[in-house]
Amino acid sequence: MSILVVGSVAFDTLETPSGKAEKILGGAATYFSLAASFFTDVRVIGVVGEDFTVEHEAVMTKRGVDTTGIEHAPGLTFHWTGSYSGNLAEAKTLGTDLNVFATFSPKIPAAYADSDYLFLANIDPVLQAEVRKAMPGVKMVCGDTMNYWIADHTENLKLVLKELDVLLINDGEARMLSGETNGFKAAEKVMKLGPKSVVVKHGEYGATGYFSDRAFPPIAGTPGKTPAPFRAPAMPLAEVVDPTGAGDSFAGGFYGYLASQPVFSPEGFRTAMFYGGVMGSFTCEQFGTKRLETLTKEEIDARFELFREISHLS
Amino acid sequence: MSILVVGSVAFDTLETPSGKAEKILGGAATYFSLAASFFTDVRVIGVVGEDFTVEHEAVMTKRGVDTTGIEHAPGLTFHWTGSYSGNLAEAKTLGTDLNVFATFSPKIPAAYADSDYLFLANIDPVLQAEVRKAMPGVKMVCGDTMNYWIADHTENLKLVLKELDVLLINDGEARMLSGETNGFKAAEKVMKLGPKSVVVKHGEYGATGYFSDRAFPPIAGTPGKTPAPFRAPAMPLAEVVDPTGAGDSFAGGFYGYLASQPVFSPEGFRTAMFYGGVMGSFTCEQFGTKRLETLTKEEIDARFELFREISHLS
Repeated sequence: MSILVVGSVAFDTLETPSGKAEKILGGAATYFSLAASFFTDVRVIGVVGEDFTVEHEAVMTKRGVDTTGIEHAPGLTFHWTGSYSGNLAEAKTLGTDLNVFATFSPKIPAAYADSDYLFLANIDPVLQAEVRKAMPGVKMVCGDTMNYWIADHTENLKLVLKELDVLLINDGEARMLSGETNGFKAAEKVMKLGPKSVVVKHGEYGATGYFSDRAFPPIAGTPGKTPAPFRAPAMPLAEVVDPTGAGDSFAGGFYGYLASQPVFSPEGFRTAMFYGGVMGSFTCEQFGTKRLETLTKEEIDARFELFREISHLS
Repeated sequence: MSILVVGSVAFDTLETPSGKAEKILGGAATYFSLAASFFTDVRVIGVVGEDFTVEHEAVMTKRGVDTTGIEHAPGLTFHWTGSYSGNLAEAKTLGTDLNVFATFSPKIPAAYADSDYLFLANIDPVLQAEVRKAMPGVKMVCGDTMNYWIADHTENLKLVLKELDVLLINDGEARMLSGETNGFKAAEKVMKLGPKSVVVKHGEYGATGYFSDRAFPPIAGTPGKTPAPFRAPAMPLAEVVDPTGAGDSFAGGFYGYLASQPVFSPEGFRTAMFYGGVMGSFTCEQFGTKRLETLTKEEIDARFELFREISHLS
């Protein structure tokens, strides 16, 4: 099955306790695509500027990602500058040069029309809604957002939430969107806004999935019992070199695995959350997309087994 | 097997978003004993004042806890006053009346001398060391501490840490004790101070156990491989009525289960961490010790299964 992802393709300049990196390849759609490419076919829609080279694009095409939908516009590529300190839980943004991303208007190539799964990465909810509308036939829609859209573009965001099968957010975003400090109640409230399932990421502590009984329509005759929340672990890493893109890599592993399955099932969702954690943990090990570029399916399988070991009783 | 626990027996006056409670039974040794009593024999050492009634003591004796070692001294019982807000992650201490606890000098009844397991709840490390020295024949020593002792009684605490098989602390304490922000490195450093294993509690996100290859000496012929860290989930609770004593209840469930097992094994430690989470989650459901007082083994078993469901792939 194929995933269509729309989101940012960017350059990042960043500093972590492990070192500095200058204008390296980044962006939510980039990390998502690379992570998902280990599980299924991926097609990207985004925009880049004249400083985006053939070599940058090859990072994605080498992994089989279809970059037909990456528009090359006059000007410079979106450039984020930030730094991390302490336990690297949160980035401090030092600069956001939107450049060509400021006037981004997603265009869907004809060859993408038959995509089965849609991922709306963290961009303006107005654009998310446009792309969703242009792809009415997809089997599933999964999306991400951030505090900026939650705070200042709430109404537009709510229109997108109505259309989502799965929303992927972090703790702070779940609290902000729901006005609830309790994690369980926050997820319940967020699901009332539309998403059939919510996966809340807790950084170094893993993620909790809340799957409503609306989450599994394709399984005829499934008992109506709402699955309990599910807790997926994160890998205790001795060194987090660069956490940039870990959340997007989680999304790629999660959704990539889901899209590779013949049917949706509670067990499939659980396994997808484990693969999300696996891909996020790899991304943290090196700067930018470096670790994902050299990663193999064997390494992914081995880490998946490690995730099982560190969370299962036997 | 029997556990000897030394620690505080207290009264708590507290306020949470769910309501207020005035001078209710509390204290680390109390919560620990009640939680552990579902798994094994428990003997308590502590001190109370004249305001501690037969009814208060009966809360423990009804659960089979041996309270011979609770000394009744002239004066008032240790009284803590505090409040919780937001997501109830941390208590704000409004008052600490040590009362009879200020001059507490643990006395070990002769009948406790054959105890198999020792739990040093959060008290002055000088007293922890004394009790540990007086019980040289125990099979295992497990202990707790808090930021106050870490910051201002470091050297005394380090003497206790050298003697511990298992240290139970929370994230903040692990960081403070190690000077490391990274969770994995923090645990490694703490283990170098003595404890063969460290269980780090993450509140609503569960706990991570780090078990060194020194953790399982009683199993002859066990391969030398250090077990990977282990992540145990916490229950996503829709309402946390009162989190007071949740950490001590975790300790009671964890250590009570361990003490009920014929041998130490990695799987036993993992299961113990699950039971820790189970007992902690029950304590949060009502004010003070109320939930533990009415709890049944059947409810514990059912919640253990729920913990397995929310964390296991199938």
